[in-house]
Amino acid sequence: MFKAIVSASTLRDALDSVSVLVDECKIRLNEDELAIRAVDPANVGMVDLTLEAAAFESYEADGGVIGVNLNRLEDIAGMANSGDLVQLELDEETRKLHIQIDGLSYTLALIDPDSIRQEPDIPDLDLPAEIVVEGAQIGRGITAADMVSDHIRLRVDEAEEAFFIEAEGDTDDVDLRLDREDLIDLQAGPAESLFSLDYLKDMNKAIPKDAEVRVELGEEFPVKLHYEFGEGMGQVTYMLAPRIQSD
Amino acid sequence: MFKAIVSASTLRDALDSVSVLVDECKIRLNEDELAIRAVDPANVGMVDLTLEAAAFESYEADGGVIGVNLNRLEDIAGMANSGDLVQLELDEETRKLHIQIDGLSYTLALIDPDSIRQEPDIPDLDLPAEIVVEGAQIGRGITAADMVSDHIRLRVDEAEEAFFIEAEGDTDDVDLRLDREDLIDLQAGPAESLFSLDYLKDMNKAIPKDAEVRVELGEEFPVKLHYEFGEGMGQVTYMLAPRIQSD
Amino acid sequence: MFKAIVSASTLRDALDSVSVLVDECKIRLNEDELAIRAVDPANVGMVDLTLEAAAFESYEADGGVIGVNLNRLEDIAGMANSGDLVQLELDEETRKLHIQIDGLSYTLALIDPDSIRQEPDIPDLDLPAEIVVEGAQIGRGITAADMVSDHIRLRVDEAEEAFFIEAEGDTDDVDLRLDREDLIDLQAGPAESLFSLDYLKDMNKAIPKDAEVRVELGEEFPVKLHYEFGEGMGQVTYMLAPRIQSD
Repeated sequence: MFKAIVSASTLRDALDSVSVLVDECKIRLNEDELAIRAVDPANVGMVDLTLEAAAFESYEADGGVIGVNLNRLEDIAGMANSGDLVQLELDEETRKLHIQIDGLSYTLALIDPDSIRQEPDIPDLDLPAEIVVEGAQIGRGITAADMVSDHIRLRVDEAEEAFFIEAEGDTDDVDLRLDREDLIDLQAGPAESLFSLDYLKDMNKAIPKDAEVRVELGEEFPVKLHYEFGEGMGQVTYMLAPRIQSD
Repeated sequence: MFKAIVSASTLRDALDSVSVLVDECKIRLNEDELAIRAVDPANVGMVDLTLEAAAFESYEADGGVIGVNLNRLEDIAGMANSGDLVQLELDEETRKLHIQIDGLSYTLALIDPDSIRQEPDIPDLDLPAEIVVEGAQIGRGITAADMVSDHIRLRVDEAEEAFFIEAEGDTDDVDLRLDREDLIDLQAGPAESLFSLDYLKDMNKAIPKDAEVRVELGEEFPVKLHYEFGEGMGQVTYMLAPRIQSD
Repeated sequence: MFKAIVSASTLRDALDSVSVLVDECKIRLNEDELAIRAVDPANVGMVDLTLEAAAFESYEADGGVIGVNLNRLEDIAGMANSGDLVQLELDEETRKLHIQIDGLSYTLALIDPDSIRQEPDIPDLDLPAEIVVEGAQIGRGITAADMVSDHIRLRVDEAEEAFFIEAEGDTDDVDLRLDREDLIDLQAGPAESLFSLDYLKDMNKAIPKDAEVRVELGEEFPVKLHYEFGEGMGQVTYMLAPRIQSD
C-alpha cells in the first residue's frame, strides 16, 4: 500500500538527485520515509536519498518496493507548476502508479524491481576532513576545472586552513581556493583526492546553488557530499570513488 | 489594389495560425476583410482565418488574391517590435508586396496563386457537443498526451458533465479531466473522437494560452477549434479530421 | 612585466571585439595602454583595439607582447560576474598568464607571438562620408539584409541626406533608410560600397546595441566602423574591404 501527496518541487528535487546517476531505480516505500539507493553502471558514483514522511502533505506506506523509470517520472512531475501538489497512489494489482496533478491523471507502468541493478551499501568511512560550503562554490570550481581537464582534485591544506578545488590540464591549470571565511565550516585534516570530473558535474546539476553541502574528504579515498532539500526533510548523500593519482 | 497598415503583433498572430499547417497560402484581399483558407498537404488539417478591416489601422482592398511564402513573411514581421506598425502595399504591375516597418523596406516577390494548393471548403458540421476552454488547458492535455502516444482522444462524458483529453500508450496512460467548473462553457452531447497528436500540437502552437477556444466535437467526426485574436477582430477556425478508432 | 586589474565586463568587451575576427592574437602591453591589431585569415576584415591604462583599476606594463588564445581567455573571463575584478599577471619566466577572479586562479599558457599572423597596418583612408549611428540600427539593417542576400550595400544619398543599408536577393530586396533625424550625425559625401554580409554580421555581434558607431564610407572603398567601450577608455576600429559591385 502506498498513497501520498507531495509538492511538485520537492518531488522534482528528489528525482533529479538520483537521475543524474541512473535511469531506473528502486524506491523503498517505508512506513516513515521514502528511500532510494543507487549506483551508476560503472560502480563509481552512488546516491543515498531519504525523504521523510513529514516532507509530504500526506503519506501512507507499508514497506513495499517499486521500480521506476526516472526520466519518465521527471517528465510527469515537470507537467506540474512549482506550487502544485502531486498525488501518488500504487495499484498493487496492476503494479501501476497513479499520478494526479490538478485534473491530470497519469498511469505509470512500473518496472520489476528485480530487473534493476542491486542497491549499493554505502559504507561509513570516517574521513579526516570535513568542509561545509555553498553549492554555488562547488559549481564554480567544477566549471573552472572543466575548462582544462577531465579530472578534479579536492584538497584541504591544514596549515593554510583552506579548501582547494584544482585541475591540471596539458598546458593550463586552474584552482579555486576557499579560505575558512569563504566556507560555512571547516574541520581541517589530511585530505587530497582526485576524481572524475564527469561524475561531479552530474552531481552538481542536482545540488541547489544555495544548499549547504557537507564534503567529507580523505587521502585517495572516496568523497561524500551531503545536502538537504524539501525544507530539511529530504537528505541526499553522494559518494564518489577516487581516481588513482599519477605523480 | 491593396494598401494597409496593421500592428506587427496582429499580423504575426494571423500568419502564425496558418503557417503551422502550410508553407504557402493564398490571401484574399476582400473589401471588408483579409481572408485565408488552407489545408495541409495530407488533407487532414484545415484553417480558415479572417481579419476584419477594423483590425487594421487603415485598410484598402478591392478583392484581389495574392500568393505568399508564409515563413518569409513571418521573418519580415519578426523584424518589428510588438508595438510597431507594418505597412503593406501591393504593386500590381510587378506583383510584389512592399512592406515597411519604421524605415525598413522589404520588397517581397509574390507566388502565383494558381501554383498554390486549392483552398478547401470547410463544411458546416452541426456537431453535438461544444466545449469552451482556455488555450492553456488544451496545451496541458496535449503536452501530457505527447508523453505516451501519437494519438489523442477528445471526449465528452454527458453523465459526468466533463471534457476529457486522453491518450493511451503501450504501457502508460494519461488523461486530463476538465469538469464544468474548469471550463468556460460546456454543451454536453455524445462526442468522442481520436486525432493525430502532431496536428493538434501544431495548431496548439498558434493558439494563445489565454484565448477562449470553442471546441466542437462529435462521434468519430472532425473537431473544430475556434478562437479570436487581434482584439476580437481576427477569427481562426481549425478543422481536423479524425483517426479511425481501433477497439 | 605586466600586472593589471580590470573589470570583467570591460575585459569581455575587449576580447569579444577581436574574437569575432580571429582565434588567436598578439596583445601589446604598452606602458600607457593595451593594444591589439588583427586581420582575419582571408585579409578582408581588420580590427584595431586600444584599452587605455585608465580603463583598468591598476595597470603596470613595460611594452611586452604576448600571444593568446582568445576563446580560452573569453571562457575564463566568462567565469566572472559582471561586477567582478579580474587580476592579470604575466610570469616572464614560464611565459604564462596568471588570472585571478575572486579566489579562482587560472594559469594560461601563452602562444609564441611569432607563430601568430602578422599584425596589419590599418591605413588612413580619408573617406568622403561619415555617419554616426546607434549600434542597434546597424544590427537592424544587417538582420534584414541577411534575409535576402550574402552581400550588403552601404550608401549615402547626398541629395536626400540619408544613409541606406541595402541588400538585393534573387527575388526580394530590402533596404533600411536612416534620415538625418534618425542618425546621431551625418557628413554626407559620395559613398556607396558593397560588403560581405558575413563579416559585418560578425562585427555586429561585438558592437554594443547602445554604442555610437562612427561609419566612414567611400565609393568602392573599405568601410571603417569605430566605437568606444569601457566608459570611453576603450576604442575599437573595424575595417572591412569592399566587394566588387557587379552592375
